[in-house]
Amino acid sequence: MSELRRDPIGGRWVIVDTDHPSTPGEYDYEQQIYKNDICPFCYGNEIMTPPEIEAIRDNGTYPNTPGWQVRVVANKFPALQIEGEIDRRGIGMYDISGGVGAHEVIIETPFHNKDIPELSDQEVEDFLKVYCRRSLDLAKDKRFKYIMLFKNFGTPAGASLEHPHTQLIALPMVPKNVAEEIKGAHSYFEYRERCLFCDIIRQERQEKERIVLENNDFISFCPFVSRFPFELWIMPKKHSGHFCQSSADEIKSLAWILKETISRLKNIFPNLSYNYIIHTSPINSDGGLEGYHWHIEFMPKLTRVAGFEWGSGFYVVATPPELAAERLRNK
Amino acid sequence: MSELRRDPIGGRWVIVDTDHPSTPGEYDYEQQIYKNDICPFCYGNEIMTPPEIEAIRDNGTYPNTPGWQVRVVANKFPALQIEGEIDRRGIGMYDISGGVGAHEVIIETPFHNKDIPELSDQEVEDFLKVYCRRSLDLAKDKRFKYIMLFKNFGTPAGASLEHPHTQLIALPMVPKNVAEEIKGAHSYFEYRERCLFCDIIRQERQEKERIVLENNDFISFCPFVSRFPFELWIMPKKHSGHFCQSSADEIKSLAWILKETISRLKNIFPNLSYNYIIHTSPINSDGGLEGYHWHIEFMPKLTRVAGFEWGSGFYVVATPPELAAERLRNK
Repeated sequence: MSELRRDPIGGRWVIVDTDHPSTPGEYDYEQQIYKNDICPFCYGNEIMTPPEIEAIRDNGTYPNTPGWQVRVVANKFPALQIEGEIDRRGIGMYDISGGVGAHEVIIETPFHNKDIPELSDQEVEDFLKVYCRRSLDLAKDKRFKYIMLFKNFGTPAGASLEHPHTQLIALPMVPKNVAEEIKGAHSYFEYRERCLFCDIIRQERQEKERIVLENNDFISFCPFVSRFPFELWIMPKKHSGHFCQSSADEIKSLAWILKETISRLKNIFPNLSYNYIIHTSPINSDGGLEGYHWHIEFMPKLTRVAGFEWGSGFYVVATPPELAAERLRNK
Repeated sequence: MSELRRDPIGGRWVIVDTDHPSTPGEYDYEQQIYKNDICPFCYGNEIMTPPEIEAIRDNGTYPNTPGWQVRVVANKFPALQIEGEIDRRGIGMYDISGGVGAHEVIIETPFHNKDIPELSDQEVEDFLKVYCRRSLDLAKDKRFKYIMLFKNFGTPAGASLEHPHTQLIALPMVPKNVAEEIKGAHSYFEYRERCLFCDIIRQERQEKERIVLENNDFISFCPFVSRFPFELWIMPKKHSGHFCQSSADEIKSLAWILKETISRLKNIFPNLSYNYIIHTSPINSDGGLEGYHWHIEFMPKLTRVAGFEWGSGFYVVATPPELAAERLRNK
């Protein structure tokens, strides 16, 4: 018989096929194949993007010219705009607000065809540092309540450009899924006076079977209630609410575990597309966040998610996380 | 500037691009092209499926042979099984339950290549009646708390078989998204002593701009807080909690509006894939459902949903529902 499992954070039930689990070879996923069209994120094409907001670049080179290692620009087709009024109001029973926010793109490397596993540890560290710096800078704007960093890698994962990049959206409100996580974690904290995520780490380290990698500061594991096959979470072992408050040493540790986790996945699934999202605490809020613990949720794009899944919130996972972690540990 | 809109049911915010809306021609969607492999749902191949549970068939024909118009079988690869113990228990901080449930397939027509717009009104009515009958039958099993009917049409929408069919899953718990809708509707009802969905219908009929079709019993419209471009909801105009309690006349009305809605969409988007889900009240529950109103949520598969969207719960919609409805009204 399959198993129904309940997520301790938001209360979601998922079906895990422990009866006839799918092996990696059974996933007929759409691979990311580079087409190498003219790319606005490559050296020499800097003029094709909006002006540079910041960059890590060689001494003596100028903004909006080659010579950079990481480059941040505004999104050319922003979902939200930095100028304007939030102006929350009602239209009959509906609520509406101006589309105020920031939408930036962090170009992680000048190399069009280098995914994270092909970058050096230093290069990964560099773009993670830029994630932090941009978050801290935008958090100064008191209109923003949440900063979301997410990466769509590969066309099958919804990326409109294949050159490796991460998007940053600063929002005047907290996204629903994060708000629910915070609520779940806060209820747990009120009842037990302990952080839910710290307890998850404790149990995972005891049971061991879902852990993939661990270093001094981070743990990467397949969550007990995975929604997607080979889903992975990377979590700081020390309780910490805000990603952008990570120390330089922690960013170094994170760079290693992020690169190594993705390398192992791509050893099993060549040319894999994926998404990851940094789940962190809201900013400019008046508390109520006790017990939230930042982490990265990593979703390999192995299956087509049917509309029913995001419509109902019910997921069927064909490879139990215990089996996925075992495969990844041995790669 | 774009607009942020808040869903009055669950409180979700979405970004609607009212600034540079996408026209239908800008969606480069993956089309459903029939491959016509050997199909277990076609006449003559009845032996390839598990035994027939029920069917509408010609007089004098036998179960598991040709001569049927609608045929219900168990799913060959069920996510849940009808036999066994629910056996809810904890593993440390995690909750688990046996995978008890039912997983059936309703084959809507013997014609491999006929989508709903190509069926007669009577044929659509017939399979909708079978939806109701199977729901009523499974609701007798007191272990089940929810019956979910959903259709994935076309490979791009996650269908593993291209022959038109709908799946039914009977669950020992209520799926998260439905539970949230019920909670939202219940809070609204407690505060205003009116049904949230009835109020939505009232406002939509006043504003008119998001309505696509209407008949005596149903309304089809693009919701104010669409998550996907050209998303459509079909809702009974009379307050009603349970889909399976629809009268014969209502099913006739529903058949017309469902067929006509999909026809209009496919006139704009040929070979479109789609998903729909029937959102209805839980069964075998002890009340607390005041103010819930069943409806169909219909999602055309025009875009690739990036992992970020189902990870964060934040959606960016490139065609405002007002424009989508206008296009659909004029088709």
